Amino acid sequence: MIKGIVASNGIAIAPAYKLEEIKLDITKQVISNPEEECARFSAAIEEASNQLEIIRQQAFETMGEEQAKIFEAHLLVVKDPELIEPVKSKVMEEKVNAEFAVKEIRDQFVMIFENMDNEYMKERASDIRDVTNRLLSILMNVKSNDPSLISEESILIANDLTPSDTAGINPEIVKGFITNIGGRTSHSAIMARSLELPAVVGTKTVMESIQDGDLIILDALNGEVIINPTDEQIVHYKDLKANYEQEQEELKVLKDQPTLTNDDYHVELAANIGTPNDLKGVISHGAEGIGLFRTEFLYMNRSDFPTEEEQFKAYQKVLKGMNGKPVVIRTLDIGGDKELPYLKMPKELNPFLGYRAIRLCLDRREIFKTQLRALLRASTYGSLRIMFPMIATIQEFKDAKTLLNDVKQELLDEGIQVSDRIQIGMMVEIPSAALLADQFAKIVDFFSIGTNDLIQYTFAADRMNEHVSYLYQPLNPSLLRLIKLVIDAAHKEGKWVGMCGEMAGDELAVPVLLGLGLDEFSMSATSILKTRKLIKKLNMKDMNKLANKAADQSTTDEVVNLVNDSIK
Amino acid sequence: MIKGIVASNGIAIAPAYKLEEIKLDITKQVISNPEEECARFSAAIEEASNQLEIIRQQAFETMGEEQAKIFEAHLLVVKDPELIEPVKSKVMEEKVNAEFAVKEIRDQFVMIFENMDNEYMKERASDIRDVTNRLLSILMNVKSNDPSLISEESILIANDLTPSDTAGINPEIVKGFITNIGGRTSHSAIMARSLELPAVVGTKTVMESIQDGDLIILDALNGEVIINPTDEQIVHYKDLKANYEQEQEELKVLKDQPTLTNDDYHVELAANIGTPNDLKGVISHGAEGIGLFRTEFLYMNRSDFPTEEEQFKAYQKVLKGMNGKPVVIRTLDIGGDKELPYLKMPKELNPFLGYRAIRLCLDRREIFKTQLRALLRASTYGSLRIMFPMIATIQEFKDAKTLLNDVKQELLDEGIQVSDRIQIGMMVEIPSAALLADQFAKIVDFFSIGTNDLIQYTFAADRMNEHVSYLYQPLNPSLLRLIKLVIDAAHKEGKWVGMCGEMAGDELAVPVLLGLGLDEFSMSATSILKTRKLIKKLNMKDMNKLANKAADQSTTDEVVNLVNDSIK
Repeated sequence: MIKGIVASNGIAIAPAYKLEEIKLDITKQVISNPEEECARFSAAIEEASNQLEIIRQQAFETMGEEQAKIFEAHLLVVKDPELIEPVKSKVMEEKVNAEFAVKEIRDQFVMIFENMDNEYMKERASDIRDVTNRLLSILMNVKSNDPSLISEESILIANDLTPSDTAGINPEIVKGFITNIGGRTSHSAIMARSLELPAVVGTKTVMESIQDGDLIILDALNGEVIINPTDEQIVHYKDLKANYEQEQEELKVLKDQPTLTNDDYHVELAANIGTPNDLKGVISHGAEGIGLFRTEFLYMNRSDFPTEEEQFKAYQKVLKGMNGKPVVIRTLDIGGDKELPYLKMPKELNPFLGYRAIRLCLDRREIFKTQLRALLRASTYGSLRIMFPMIATIQEFKDAKTLLNDVKQELLDEGIQVSDRIQIGMMVEIPSAALLADQFAKIVDFFSIGTNDLIQYTFAADRMNEHVSYLYQPLNPSLLRLIKLVIDAAHKEGKWVGMCGEMAGDELAVPVLLGLGLDEFSMSATSILKTRKLIKKLNMKDMNKLANKAADQSTTDEVVNLVNDSIK
Repeated sequence: MIKGIVASNGIAIAPAYKLEEIKLDITKQVISNPEEECARFSAAIEEASNQLEIIRQQAFETMGEEQAKIFEAHLLVVKDPELIEPVKSKVMEEKVNAEFAVKEIRDQFVMIFENMDNEYMKERASDIRDVTNRLLSILMNVKSNDPSLISEESILIANDLTPSDTAGINPEIVKGFITNIGGRTSHSAIMARSLELPAVVGTKTVMESIQDGDLIILDALNGEVIINPTDEQIVHYKDLKANYEQEQEELKVLKDQPTLTNDDYHVELAANIGTPNDLKGVISHGAEGIGLFRTEFLYMNRSDFPTEEEQFKAYQKVLKGMNGKPVVIRTLDIGGDKELPYLKMPKELNPFLGYRAIRLCLDRREIFKTQLRALLRASTYGSLRIMFPMIATIQEFKDAKTLLNDVKQELLDEGIQVSDRIQIGMMVEIPSAALLADQFAKIVDFFSIGTNDLIQYTFAADRMNEHVSYLYQPLNPSLLRLIKLVIDAAHKEGKWVGMCGEMAGDELAVPVLLGLGLDEFSMSATSILKTRKLIKKLNMKDMNKLANKAADQSTTDEVVNLVNDSIK
């Protein structure tokens, strides 16, 4: 048995199809006619562009716009003069074959990008590798080992899957995939979830351990791979697979039901989204609204700020798509670990305690105003709720709201319609805001608790830092008290409280949060149905008692034990 | 008028004495007898060592051990074979004059050290510059422009003062100094405070603006320098000087008095110290105890961990020196921005939210145990209180205390005496600890609130980051509520609460902290007498009302107004 990281849930049983990496053996050759060689290179670019255009179209149809964008990026790379011209010069000046020139130039670029201390640039290196492999295969007339050629039901085994590989997968035939490298957030993992295809990545050894044609059980619920299973194992996993699929069906029944406890108390289950393309999943998983629309995507992977019009269209699309259901849009939360290539930011010793989100927006008002104009213009297309991130003081909230009102007046003066039913709220993700929730509650329409950051600051521990990640304790009584303070203060003023951190979808946390009186739980769309199922089983009165008792404990372990006792 | 940074308080009026930097014009010369040249170089080293030994002795007598250590470091440099040997080789092999060889080798070392990304190493570069300048002056027989040669009352004006320069100052004659460069924490600033000599640094232009003999008013209360003042100005500043000195005298009267409010409520004013050498100041400023002894100094400026014996001696010295008055010793708070050259630390994205203090000590127990053994062994020499830094969870405190008890048992088994009246407490500098203060209060002997960090985490703002330093708001109601929570919880369990952050000595904060019930205020020794004077004027009942009202406000500005109204 091999273990790995679950990239996309499910169980599959099928023979292995190993996607061997074709070793392209590139030798330096002296050529006599460099013009001819350049022409051959140009033809290869043409062919690669055509292939990519076709794949982009397929990806758009099967996986949506976001996935298709990866190939738009590849198209830009393959046509990039900064890549093409150096190759041609090399061919002309050194009279070498195009393959060798491509390899040399690729190696230079990859080295430069990989050495940059920036995730975005490192990803560019992997794009360049994927694109140049395609070019080299064309030049050398090597048929690359393409998943789209698989014709019988199988589980795909590979060292790694490039976006091009993943886009070639036909989910009717490929029942799942397993790779040596990769993590939950790699391109291929994200694509697997879009395709609802069971996948386990990062196994380190799957390629070495499996032979073509071996029967494989892929347990992408527990991250396990069984090679050539016994009959008993096959029977067992067929049962598991049937159960899992039945459970998925049962969950689908909950899709259009309201979220009620077993004593008929209603809470709202909403979805966190990153782009308008996530709407499909939001609707198919039965979200009652959008609790967090992160707007950063609009600003990323581009060379300049998005225009008001571009933003307006994105907000309008989401509001229209949700058909009157509430949509909480968070204003720009850039800075910290999220950088923009076109926005010069100060180098900071502690970026998580630095110049970001509302701090930056209140300082760089021209950026903020463009977004606020776009939001207000979109407001007439649905039920808009605007949320400011990283609010630490009353003054900051007041400043942001004043600016919003100024922008609104500006639009009205221009004769542009603005809804007068917009709610204006804030993230509670900084301890000072939680501690002063009673004062904030008088001037906001709602709170949304951002637990990821709130936990980091409350425990003074960066959860991405493995040496202190033990301090990421959502169920620590200190944090529960802070949450209780916020909810009680809001309810006293008749305001509602949501939560949009990972905690909102956590099985152990949901009972306590329910008991504390949380009104809205916002999570990734795929967690909504199972959370609805969980809540249907819970009793509000019992959860109230549980929550109060939990806040009175002294350690996380004690709270976990309490929760386990109360829901079993 | 010129403005600068106050390095040491006071007012002085005297003529200017400009300390021109001697430009040492070093040319490369071919020499015929390299052995002779090497001998000349050795003699210069001998002479420099003798000079440094004399200065070290003087510094020890006038300024104390800590300042003398700077010259011990210089002595090590001047005798360092890694400096001497390359100079000699250069003289021998290239047949060049010693001056040129010294200059070349110095430039190499300075370049290497200055390019290191490490404050400690950068300071080494300045040590090397100071020492080689001394060597070059001796070799070239240039009398360096030495402040010890000043024979008439004056104010010293310089581009910068090296430690050697500052050590040469006779405070009977030199009434103050002003420099172009430097900051509050530079060597010369620290020495000025030891000498109680008015000083303003970092003026940028004082050397260019002043002529030798100009009459100067040095207002090192406001950081201002007046050149050739009018008669009115002289009269005015003589008054200010007299007032300041009278005030200092009045404060001295308070030295041996207890700290009582005007309605006879007693609080304890204690001092923060960094090394046993600070004891002199602690006692002369009438501290009622030591509220924070940072033990990091023991680990710094060295090449390996301090032994148990070295630590024991330092703790013993402080406990004995305080003669039974309470001494709170904080266990090692390394990490974050404080690095040790011999301790390999992980590179962290957010060091303030990282692996430091108790987190490191509970992980690297061998380091922690050595310190705990030394502390416990010293416990019989006074009134010891041990304090753990950066406690975030109950589990951490329990783990630290268990280890302490194990070490105690170990010592008792070895037949070593340990006091049984040691108090064991913790810093409250992480929001989670403050929020759970009622639970902590059951298991600690005391709390000390570390406001510098607590504010950073509560507002999620690195106060060293100028873009967000506006969020360093000690008087924000959210922070006051957190402090109140801690004090109320402690008092309920009969435990005391101190504060050892900068806030404890802040004029505007003291009335509110008093009203919240803070039991101990620990600050830099030089702030104690003026805080005692302030507290004597305050009425506890009024401050209670003020504090409760302050915690009920919504912004820092509102609190500041309340305080100003109540103490005027």
